[in-house]
Amino acid sequence: MTTIRERIAARQLTPGARLPSVRQAARSMGVSVSTVVEAYERLAAEGVIKSRPGSGFYVSAPLAPLALGKIGPRLDREVDPLWMSRQSLEAGEEMLRPGCGWLPAEWMPEAALRRALKAVARGSAASLTDYSEPLGLAPLRGFIARRLGERDIPAAPDQILLTGSGTQAIDLVCRFLIEPGDTVLIDDPCYFNFRALLQAHRADIVGVPMTPNGPDLEIFAQSLAQKRPRLYLTNAAVHNPTGAAISSTTAHRLMALAEPAGLIIVEDDIFADFETAPTPRLAAFDGLRNVIQIGSFSKTLSAAARCGYIAARPDWIEQIADIGLATQFGSPRLSAEIALTLLKDGGYRRHLEALRARLAGARTATIRRLEALGITPFVEPKAGMFVWARLPDEADASQIARLCLAEGIVLAPGNAFSLGQTARDYLRFNVSQSDDPRIYDSLSRALQASAPPMRAAG
Amino acid sequence: MTTIRERIAARQLTPGARLPSVRQAARSMGVSVSTVVEAYERLAAEGVIKSRPGSGFYVSAPLAPLALGKIGPRLDREVDPLWMSRQSLEAGEEMLRPGCGWLPAEWMPEAALRRALKAVARGSAASLTDYSEPLGLAPLRGFIARRLGERDIPAAPDQILLTGSGTQAIDLVCRFLIEPGDTVLIDDPCYFNFRALLQAHRADIVGVPMTPNGPDLEIFAQSLAQKRPRLYLTNAAVHNPTGAAISSTTAHRLMALAEPAGLIIVEDDIFADFETAPTPRLAAFDGLRNVIQIGSFSKTLSAAARCGYIAARPDWIEQIADIGLATQFGSPRLSAEIALTLLKDGGYRRHLEALRARLAGARTATIRRLEALGITPFVEPKAGMFVWARLPDEADASQIARLCLAEGIVLAPGNAFSLGQTARDYLRFNVSQSDDPRIYDSLSRALQASAPPMRAAG
Repeated sequence: MTTIRERIAARQLTPGARLPSVRQAARSMGVSVSTVVEAYERLAAEGVIKSRPGSGFYVSAPLAPLALGKIGPRLDREVDPLWMSRQSLEAGEEMLRPGCGWLPAEWMPEAALRRALKAVARGSAASLTDYSEPLGLAPLRGFIARRLGERDIPAAPDQILLTGSGTQAIDLVCRFLIEPGDTVLIDDPCYFNFRALLQAHRADIVGVPMTPNGPDLEIFAQSLAQKRPRLYLTNAAVHNPTGAAISSTTAHRLMALAEPAGLIIVEDDIFADFETAPTPRLAAFDGLRNVIQIGSFSKTLSAAARCGYIAARPDWIEQIADIGLATQFGSPRLSAEIALTLLKDGGYRRHLEALRARLAGARTATIRRLEALGITPFVEPKAGMFVWARLPDEADASQIARLCLAEGIVLAPGNAFSLGQTARDYLRFNVSQSDDPRIYDSLSRALQASAPPMRAAG
Repeated sequence: MTTIRERIAARQLTPGARLPSVRQAARSMGVSVSTVVEAYERLAAEGVIKSRPGSGFYVSAPLAPLALGKIGPRLDREVDPLWMSRQSLEAGEEMLRPGCGWLPAEWMPEAALRRALKAVARGSAASLTDYSEPLGLAPLRGFIARRLGERDIPAAPDQILLTGSGTQAIDLVCRFLIEPGDTVLIDDPCYFNFRALLQAHRADIVGVPMTPNGPDLEIFAQSLAQKRPRLYLTNAAVHNPTGAAISSTTAHRLMALAEPAGLIIVEDDIFADFETAPTPRLAAFDGLRNVIQIGSFSKTLSAAARCGYIAARPDWIEQIADIGLATQFGSPRLSAEIALTLLKDGGYRRHLEALRARLAGARTATIRRLEALGITPFVEPKAGMFVWARLPDEADASQIARLCLAEGIVLAPGNAFSLGQTARDYLRFNVSQSDDPRIYDSLSRALQASAPPMRAAG
């Protein structure tokens, strides 16, 4: 009992962690099995640990399903998804952030936002003070439905549920669909926060390797047959981190595999508005039957006045709305009013046109500068802010990230995005945050410093 | 198998519902137990139903933990928490809403909000476009910490986590603390959405009867000993729905029971700003060790620009913030900027002073008009917008609510707030929404109509 207590106090056993089996514990401590059984039972009676029938004993109180984020000192945590989020959010003004996942403030539609806020400030009292209706502001849902229609996704306004953000939208869908222990497929690599989010739902996560045209269909089919996943969470169109877009062939074959298996697909399309030319959407192939689509204005309009949405079958939307009422009491109305104002006056569309051109220029420039250092893109993305690029000479991206962080530059090392830890020599670059020459100077120095002596000498 | 399939298709068995036991099913269908076992196992293999070890078979796909909200036609659902929420949120402009849980738009600080929006519209670009830091806007956390200090609750700014609302704050705390099957104590009656929220976390909910001075301590002590609850979720100061305030004696004794049991208390203090004179806070007695306090500006400032917070031990706040990053990617910044602007310019404090006086007047008037109909308050509340009142002659509040709804008046029948369904003859009145004489005319007619023939004649 004392040993277990000490290990919990020292955080060698963190809350939620599984204890060694009775047999293992008896062997490692050199005591009898019955001694361990008695110790475990006493600790369980005290509430220090908990038994889960058929599964063993776990450290209780307080539960920390995300305890992953707590392990190890900061500088050794570059590939922890939560550490990645905090690094970007907490970086000071003076830091450069080629690794972060959003546009700089000066790339956002500042003037249009100021106008929209002033317009809302002059609007109805209800829009300033009242709750939203359960599905969220009706005229904004109408706008979103029409925009989805333009992408061949047939959605009526009552198939749209507004949420506080794209992340919250995925979270609500997971609450509706996932039970602890359910298997969920994700792309490898994928947006790092998907893993943290799915961990919070205690899903079993299975990765499917990403190709330049979408997920690897052979492994996708194998995973379907062997793991019987509940759902597949993926990005539409502009994939994070690779910048790849699914091809029509891959999308069609993927849906042909998913349909008979009854697989539900959550297609996160929050980068849709970065697209210059239309690419396939699983939600369009499926007609919103077993595909749920997620959208957001956080990346292209404002991360301060956030607003996301879920598009799905009306009967699912109704039930997800109930979960939203129970756990959030609806969605933030003011952000929805601001988004609606911008969508109505055309300011948002003009901003997007300028933004896409600016991103295309920054993408070309970033790729040229990376290639000069021997860092090569996985694909040349057609849209969006990300370039997923491979370091030369199998350099360790975590080590490079650590060296550059010491020089005030926040990078995004590949394995933070990879469930299988197969992206050791990749970095994700945000081209809108990669203009400063100090980034490439620092990268160059870090590559030199991290090269093994033999090769450095060669 | 066909029978079960048909019952699921007809929604007699809704997703998440438990199937009859093997024995029951065999008996009711007139087949052998082994036939049922085989049918269940085949359905489970197909994924139509799921087995939970030790607990039986459940309808799967898609999971609806809140399926409660789906049962029965609308008019029979007056005491369903989710139906209550939807009624108030969906009621048209022409409806009267003495049963709803918020102030009318014209009672909110409209002019100050318009000023605050315009000020933010002129503010920094970052405040319009950027994400918040992980704990939320630092100056607002500083303000909240000082306000908690005034209530004898010692909180540093890093003990405050901003959230999208009070409900979301409780939800995050539950995610941190509750595992499915954990026992949670609530007051009976309590805010109806607590039940829906805890159901979404699959907690076992146990009610403790409310007295005019706080929870019934004898039953509280019994529940602690017998049910070993993980936490107790309650309102501080202004209790919803009763309007009661915990006395110092009850608060002290309650903490003396909770401490040795290691019980964690979540004290929802979202009505704090309605208070005219200070009353005891469990968080103040405990010093934010095992008590977590929840606050919000939705009720007194704006439900459109919502902003809530969690005050707790710094190590817990750090871990809850990680869950907030994983599931929400932080809190809405614009709402926090607006709240901060109002708090800084003194507009909020002036609004509160006027509001408290206005509520006191409305409370007196509402109680007088209710008493004229023989409807008597449980306590005369010292603060807040609610009066919890008992109908004469054991009238059925659900029936009264149905009759009044047909006349365009949304009431809040007692059993919607009561886990034990012990509040059949109670209604909750929101005094700020109870000024219209049509409410009392309709109530009077409904009481007449619902009275049993003998009493109506007598």
